[in-house]
Amino acid sequence: MTQNIYDTPSFFEGYSQLPRSVAGFDGAPEWPSIRSLIPDLKDRRIADLGCGFGWFCRWAREQGASEAFGVDVSQNMLSRAKEMTSDPEIHYEQADLEKVSLAESSYDLVYSSLTFHYLEDLEGLVAKIHRALKPGGWLVFSAEHPVFTAPSNPGWTQLDDHQNLWPVNQYLVEGPRITNWLADGVTKQHRTLGTYVNMLLRQGLMLRHLEEWKPTAEQIEQQPELKVELERPMFFIAAAQRPS
Amino acid sequence: MTQNIYDTPSFFEGYSQLPRSVAGFDGAPEWPSIRSLIPDLKDRRIADLGCGFGWFCRWAREQGASEAFGVDVSQNMLSRAKEMTSDPEIHYEQADLEKVSLAESSYDLVYSSLTFHYLEDLEGLVAKIHRALKPGGWLVFSAEHPVFTAPSNPGWTQLDDHQNLWPVNQYLVEGPRITNWLADGVTKQHRTLGTYVNMLLRQGLMLRHLEEWKPTAEQIEQQPELKVELERPMFFIAAAQRPS
Repeated sequence: MTQNIYDTPSFFEGYSQLPRSVAGFDGAPEWPSIRSLIPDLKDRRIADLGCGFGWFCRWAREQGASEAFGVDVSQNMLSRAKEMTSDPEIHYEQADLEKVSLAESSYDLVYSSLTFHYLEDLEGLVAKIHRALKPGGWLVFSAEHPVFTAPSNPGWTQLDDHQNLWPVNQYLVEGPRITNWLADGVTKQHRTLGTYVNMLLRQGLMLRHLEEWKPTAEQIEQQPELKVELERPMFFIAAAQRPS
Repeated sequence: MTQNIYDTPSFFEGYSQLPRSVAGFDGAPEWPSIRSLIPDLKDRRIADLGCGFGWFCRWAREQGASEAFGVDVSQNMLSRAKEMTSDPEIHYEQADLEKVSLAESSYDLVYSSLTFHYLEDLEGLVAKIHRALKPGGWLVFSAEHPVFTAPSNPGWTQLDDHQNLWPVNQYLVEGPRITNWLADGVTKQHRTLGTYVNMLLRQGLMLRHLEEWKPTAEQIEQQPELKVELERPMFFIAAAQRPS
């Protein structure tokens, strides 16, 4: 059972004020990289696992998707997602992703943004995603990068030369990490990239793309505070496909 | 053109004394992980790119390989490799891997250990490997992990809590890194895991396994100095296959 930190008031309050919550994709600098991996959605069925405020479901419908299914564990987030649309072809369900049911061979795309690192039994979900995809269908997801999740004391560190260093330790010790991001005691699951990739392969998906996100020169020019993101990867993005 | 640091006397001297040089696979703690990815070699043709002292070519022949082809840029290493065998089905060639010619559709396995991170034009070599593999043939390789190659000042760092930290910076700034390992001015190419993986995929290979190597509990018990290797990944291992 996954921790439902998004329904902890202080977390939800903080999360709701993040740029990505207020502005959607415009507040998520990794979106252009993800966008480039999304197949044509015209007349396609999509599912968004960890859909939050529903930005992706609404966007998919704008791209011509025939139906969008959003799942989230957070009642708070789904309430707001529902307020933001009256589209009859967008459906939301409140569920723990470790227990959710997904219709078999039903989706052309399963999408998930920054959610998988919260799940303990991720491999069980990947098996369900494989079955839920139509042959040739895509899984495109992002998650926190293991360099970001590994440290027992995450945070920028300066030594004598005042450069920003990211203090990696325990990288190869997989398992829970407890951080105090927006609220105390947020539990994430630290996994290496190899573990993520091999899980996809074991469940029968073909890896198509793996990217450790970095800001572009243009993004850094517009938002100089993104420059430090070149020092260590915060997110990774992967695209995989069910064989036809 | 790749730097041929292995023919720099001080480097060769130091390298020759490493456990992996003296004891071969027994001195390379990542070997059991690599070994598990090697397909059955009976009556198979293999190539080892960056073959060094020829440990893998000799081992492949012991496993029943019909022919082993070893390539290395270092004349010093090849001389010693040739001294260590009189097997007529092992052939060695001195060549820069960025310029080597490989016979097309000829190999069941292309192997490379801790070599790819020295190459500037790695993608050109991967394209050649793809063509050199028989349909269904395997590429299995190891390289230094980007967490290991990224830092501008690589080395264990202790803060107040005296834990060993690995000071990551410049992870997303790919390109040359100059270190003083065994000799001054050793040039390595820093690439993210995503860059390695996407290069394989772009050249038509299917990724089959990706592993960030860690010592096993048993290895740590036998060699307690390996415990620190859990803090950050030093090597990664990948297996990919040419589609049948």
